[in-house]
Amino acid sequence: SDSYSLLILPGDGIGPEVMTEVVKVIDWLQANRGLSFDISHGLVGGSSYDAHGTPLTDETMAKAQAVDAVLLGAVGGPKYDDLDFSVKPERGLLRLRKDMDLYANLRPAQCFDALADFSSLKRDVVAGLDILIVRELTSGVYFGEPRGIHADNNSDNEGGRVGINTQRYTSGEIRRVARSAFELARRRNNKVCSMEKANVMESGILWREEVQWVRDNEYPEVELTHMYADNGLMQLVRKPGQFDVILTDNLFGDLLSDAAAMLTGSLGMLPSASLGKPMANGRPKALYEPVHGSAPDIAGQGKANPIACILSFAMALRFSFDQGAAADALERAVEKVLADGVRTADLMGPEGGTPVSTSEMGDRIVAAL
Amino acid sequence: SDSYSLLILPGDGIGPEVMTEVVKVIDWLQANRGLSFDISHGLVGGSSYDAHGTPLTDETMAKAQAVDAVLLGAVGGPKYDDLDFSVKPERGLLRLRKDMDLYANLRPAQCFDALADFSSLKRDVVAGLDILIVRELTSGVYFGEPRGIHADNNSDNEGGRVGINTQRYTSGEIRRVARSAFELARRRNNKVCSMEKANVMESGILWREEVQWVRDNEYPEVELTHMYADNGLMQLVRKPGQFDVILTDNLFGDLLSDAAAMLTGSLGMLPSASLGKPMANGRPKALYEPVHGSAPDIAGQGKANPIACILSFAMALRFSFDQGAAADALERAVEKVLADGVRTADLMGPEGGTPVSTSEMGDRIVAAL
Ligand SMILES: CC(C)[C@H](C(=O)O)[C@@H](O)C(=O)O
Ligand SMILES: CC(C)[C@H](C(=O)O)[C@@H](O)C(=O)O
Repeated sequence: SDSYSLLILPGDGIGPEVMTEVVKVIDWLQANRGLSFDISHGLVGGSSYDAHGTPLTDETMAKAQAVDAVLLGAVGGPKYDDLDFSVKPERGLLRLRKDMDLYANLRPAQCFDALADFSSLKRDVVAGLDILIVRELTSGVYFGEPRGIHADNNSDNEGGRVGINTQRYTSGEIRRVARSAFELARRRNNKVCSMEKANVMESGILWREEVQWVRDNEYPEVELTHMYADNGLMQLVRKPGQFDVILTDNLFGDLLSDAAAMLTGSLGMLPSASLGKPMANGRPKALYEPVHGSAPDIAGQGKANPIACILSFAMALRFSFDQGAAADALERAVEKVLADGVRTADLMGPEGGTPVSTSEMGDRIVAAL
Repeated sequence: SDSYSLLILPGDGIGPEVMTEVVKVIDWLQANRGLSFDISHGLVGGSSYDAHGTPLTDETMAKAQAVDAVLLGAVGGPKYDDLDFSVKPERGLLRLRKDMDLYANLRPAQCFDALADFSSLKRDVVAGLDILIVRELTSGVYFGEPRGIHADNNSDNEGGRVGINTQRYTSGEIRRVARSAFELARRRNNKVCSMEKANVMESGILWREEVQWVRDNEYPEVELTHMYADNGLMQLVRKPGQFDVILTDNLFGDLLSDAAAMLTGSLGMLPSASLGKPMANGRPKALYEPVHGSAPDIAGQGKANPIACILSFAMALRFSFDQGAAADALERAVEKVLADGVRTADLMGPEGGTPVSTSEMGDRIVAAL
């Protein structure tokens, strides 16, 4: 059968710990489902900086371009706070996104029933929540030029400096990510809400017009609405169940998807996929990573929850390897373990449960498979 | 005694209705507290566009510059959705902010005890909440040049257009709003949390450095922390009580303050003040407005809650007119009416209460004064 090539980049903080558990899942699938993965490993973020003086080497970048999918843990930590901007851990992740042209970032925000009480929101507001945020990931203010900090000796300007970034979107960049959102909506509830600040930003006007154009010309059966991002965020906090797919730009997507993740009360549970154009083999360029960060405060203590990373791998099975059945099985295994009351530290609530370490959680999920 | 000059700009939607109730309060203060206001009226937003073809006339702008304080209702509505960007209702508001140089936007997010159950968040997460967001209001991506939508005939670019906005902050702009935040923190719990995306934006690095500089050189007794805005938003949703004063830029402030407002469950209750440099008389340039929008769907039906606008006037009494005692009295009157169970439509919950119209709510507050 096929062999799938996978580059594993554990990164910093709890990244390596949670990735170890994913590898257990991969091993099980290889032994029991006849799947075959060709795995290589690499460094990204602070760990790459420590070893090579850069958050991503050209060699690792080339590997990432060549594989079927990249699986990433998390990057960053206070240890690297004083590094120059150009070599900060985040630059490694941003280079992967940009150079692989991973323009569509899929962030499902699902509330797991067993965990609904963990949300700071009321149970009835979040129970059963299942929305998908599609965030543009390769353009906008994250990458626009000109950018930088410069001297600005205007006599009015106390401090004498100016900081500049550029929000820049082309119509083509907007259309392609809009298509991703509409395609995904078709497989869900056929509803897309696009968010920008068209009332104050021209780039937001272009966003709104181009998204509407794609809907009108190519997806007339999908229901499209538009909201200003500030109102969208309010609606997300007030009544998240009104949304199906939310489509937004890189910066708004960063904030909105974190808010959505927080609503579910399941930050340690949420996966993401970042997809680009199809490669020669028809599979999209792809990187999978948990939504949570590197959590340096609990790194190395066996406290991390590996589920977000494991579910990111389930997304890889579905979107990169066309192994929907294996993805379903993995997701069901996670649900079963949660229903059985198995809990990493972040999931321990007043109602108790069986406390387990990162590694035991991985073992339980493999056992449930 | 002194007379205070006030320009009232009711604006669009529910703006005129809620402003009528503020005028009742002003009349009462003139009749019973020996205060004297010199009031003029003007148009802003869609109502100004309808009358004059522009969302703000030069004449009204000149009046706003000359008075002690401007009181604004709200602007915008679907009727104006297809207007050109340059004459949209929002441009009137943005011109007031920019030309009056109102760089510090104060948005208190308070949870009123009688209303804690209205929040989509759990009562214990939001009860007693009292935070203050200080948002920079005259710079950043709202005003930076270059901006616009242009042709971009790169052969790669399907659609052939590009939309551009510029995030631009000078060190001086950052320092002055940071000082406002530190001053306000001194009168509260001496804690400021500054939010940006210094991990991906150079303008965020400058923001962080300059805020830290002001703290270290001028307010060493205030506790300053920094958060990335996405994490800050998560923390705001997860555990808002950890914050005292939040300091952030124009665009992040737009989103974060709306999220904070929504947490409290009291959107119809929240006031704001936008302050600039001291004028010749020592008072700051100032504009006061409710945080809520123009709510065109309920306009003209007597359903709007006038409390946010009335509390905005209380902020005017405090910050512009040095009438702290009158401001306190007005805030206590609002609390009393709420405690008595008097409720506009937006405040009617399962536990009931006395339903009142916009106008009755105003009358009750005046009666409680
Ligand atoms: C780590 C950081 C650069 C990143 C971002 O801002 O995109 C993160 O917050 C995310 O959302 O993936
Ligand atoms: C009406 C709009 C221009 C405005 C803004 O984006 O600043 C509003 O959302 C606000 O927060 O005051």
